[in-house]
Amino acid sequence: MLVVMKFGGSSVADLDKIRNVAERCIKKWKEGNQVVVVLSAMGKTTDRLLAQAGEISSMPSRREMDMLLATGEQVSVSLMAMTMIQMGVTAISLNAWQVPMHTTSAYQNAKLKRIDSERITKELDSNKIVVVTGFQGINKYDDVTTLGRGGSDTTAVALAAALNADLCEIYTDVDGVYTADPRIVPKARKMPEVTYEEMLEFASLGAKVLHSRCVEMARRYDVNLVVRSSMSEEEGTVVKETTKMEKMLISGVAVDKNIAKIAVSGMKDNPESTFKLLNLMAKNGVNIDVMIQSLEKDGTKTLTFTVARPDMMMTLDLLKKYSDVIGNANVSCEEDVAKVSVVGAGVSSNPGVAAKMFEALSNAGINTDMVTTSEIRITAVIKESEAETAMRAVHDRFASEWD
Amino acid sequence: MLVVMKFGGSSVADLDKIRNVAERCIKKWKEGNQVVVVLSAMGKTTDRLLAQAGEISSMPSRREMDMLLATGEQVSVSLMAMTMIQMGVTAISLNAWQVPMHTTSAYQNAKLKRIDSERITKELDSNKIVVVTGFQGINKYDDVTTLGRGGSDTTAVALAAALNADLCEIYTDVDGVYTADPRIVPKARKMPEVTYEEMLEFASLGAKVLHSRCVEMARRYDVNLVVRSSMSEEEGTVVKETTKMEKMLISGVAVDKNIAKIAVSGMKDNPESTFKLLNLMAKNGVNIDVMIQSLEKDGTKTLTFTVARPDMMMTLDLLKKYSDVIGNANVSCEEDVAKVSVVGAGVSSNPGVAAKMFEALSNAGINTDMVTTSEIRITAVIKESEAETAMRAVHDRFASEWD
Repeated sequence: MLVVMKFGGSSVADLDKIRNVAERCIKKWKEGNQVVVVLSAMGKTTDRLLAQAGEISSMPSRREMDMLLATGEQVSVSLMAMTMIQMGVTAISLNAWQVPMHTTSAYQNAKLKRIDSERITKELDSNKIVVVTGFQGINKYDDVTTLGRGGSDTTAVALAAALNADLCEIYTDVDGVYTADPRIVPKARKMPEVTYEEMLEFASLGAKVLHSRCVEMARRYDVNLVVRSSMSEEEGTVVKETTKMEKMLISGVAVDKNIAKIAVSGMKDNPESTFKLLNLMAKNGVNIDVMIQSLEKDGTKTLTFTVARPDMMMTLDLLKKYSDVIGNANVSCEEDVAKVSVVGAGVSSNPGVAAKMFEALSNAGINTDMVTTSEIRITAVIKESEAETAMRAVHDRFASEWD
Repeated sequence: MLVVMKFGGSSVADLDKIRNVAERCIKKWKEGNQVVVVLSAMGKTTDRLLAQAGEISSMPSRREMDMLLATGEQVSVSLMAMTMIQMGVTAISLNAWQVPMHTTSAYQNAKLKRIDSERITKELDSNKIVVVTGFQGINKYDDVTTLGRGGSDTTAVALAAALNADLCEIYTDVDGVYTADPRIVPKARKMPEVTYEEMLEFASLGAKVLHSRCVEMARRYDVNLVVRSSMSEEEGTVVKETTKMEKMLISGVAVDKNIAKIAVSGMKDNPESTFKLLNLMAKNGVNIDVMIQSLEKDGTKTLTFTVARPDMMMTLDLLKKYSDVIGNANVSCEEDVAKVSVVGAGVSSNPGVAAKMFEALSNAGINTDMVTTSEIRITAVIKESEAETAMRAVHDRFASEWD
């Protein structure tokens, strides 16, 4: 079996942890598998490099930033290969240009275009464990790029696709995907299986297990994905096209506090104004999440939407700078908000799900602001201070589902 | 003018120092020159990485070691380019595979074979300062290599040769080549010019200004080399084929305390035994320096030689392991030794030089052990504890030469 195993920065934060990971990978290899290991930079390395660059400039050159950051994973993979070799195993580290992994040219936010499998296959065939840098690539100018958020997970899935791997294991500090954040909801339980689609909803809702980019790629190339703990031997959660289990009404509850709400009121009531605003955000890389449009009695239109909290200042600046785009409307914002969501394949076919969710929130005395739904999700915007209470209340309401 | 400027690790040890170097390079660039900057890893970075690898293994994989160490220069060049861009200048960093700089495949001690000038020329032609990683290359397997001691200087000279640069400036923490180490001999003075040959002798004698590899390459490709200080604007020392100055008897005095003396006695008196011993050392990468062969009254032969002190244990191990090679001779060693040398084009033509040197040593009460001479050098092995005294005594004796 060919297995891609991915470990994040906290799993390789020091030499002891690197040894643990090495043992784990060697065990898999000794069981007769071909093993490709994908690593992030050690612990706080990336943060440290970012801080150094930040001292040089508040807007450091994006190309040079990637050249700098890419050293982080190179240190991880060389120390890991060194450790494995010291343990008596044949291993080799490869960075992005050695594979090579080709990306678009957008520095700091590149997308993987193509991975040449030749070199890795050659090393695997000579019985080596191959340790590859996550998060990075090279573009058509032969310059170093990085993949942005969720980059290393995406590298792992893309490698699994390119190598036609039998399995891609993402090791994290939790041992799987839970029905809710177990730190907030003690009764939360681990899901043995979840569909790509549900996983995507969880990712977009701020459940920090897998980034949506990586789940999307896994779905597109039909990669067998498993999320499991780097700390324990427990079975993780399998992410796949369809689950064999009987469909449950909902598969989990998620809360995202990393959002801000922005309201643009007094806009002209025509479709053009909405389009222009969305276009402005898209062009500047701001993702709009929950969005509601409402008409006021005075014939104007109000657009209310949420963005990731770190994007809030930039969004406000954009709306100010391009005030002509939105017809000099009024802009207001709110930071102390959060999203609570239920996710599950049964949502659309069971109108009762929404009713149960709002009943639970109402019983807990929690008021809901904007509400949106998708085929497999219901999301409500609430006060940030009530996020944990909301999560527990909704989870408790559906808990019998998982018994 | 196309200028290659090389700065060592202590010149880029922190962001303030990086800013100083950036300003210096930008000044040169604004004067209308094309500028290629070669950098070592920041300050103690390489030591830190070596220590990490040392914790993993006492004999870490050499390939992985190079993969690890090469990140050091990549951090330097990206931070430098970032700093220059922040100062409003167009700059770009390149590492070894981007240039690319091709080397032999010997990890940790690779030799530069060929540098493609295309990419650098393209960037220079678009008016950029090009910041290149020193010390590293790639081999025919597309693996990362490092050049070993004196590596970054060698990179700078090789780049100057490949780009047909008008000048290669090596910036160090001293402001040129001195007639003796100024920290030991206060009266030492800076030489405005020195020949490649003299510089080679100084390098092989442990005067730590330039590594002999870099001087040899400069001589072979006729590169104009200048050694100058990164701290001051002072003129440095020009290293060239011949100096225009009137030939002085000697150009300087050097001391090397990084040596150990090994004596192999009781060997069979035939040429084969000497050859076999030298061959054994050469095959294992041990450089033999001063060597003397003497015949004993009992018809056996004694070979006495010096090696670099870090190689002593390895040399003793080799002599033990291959005792048959040297005919089961006796091996003894001495660590508390040093070499004192005078260097100068006038040595061979003036027999009086040797007399003056030994007179000075004798007056200072210093006994000499082995003595060897070359066309432009006389070296005596003395006690380590007397090294500084010897240097001052010999320097004083010749001081009038430089007036």
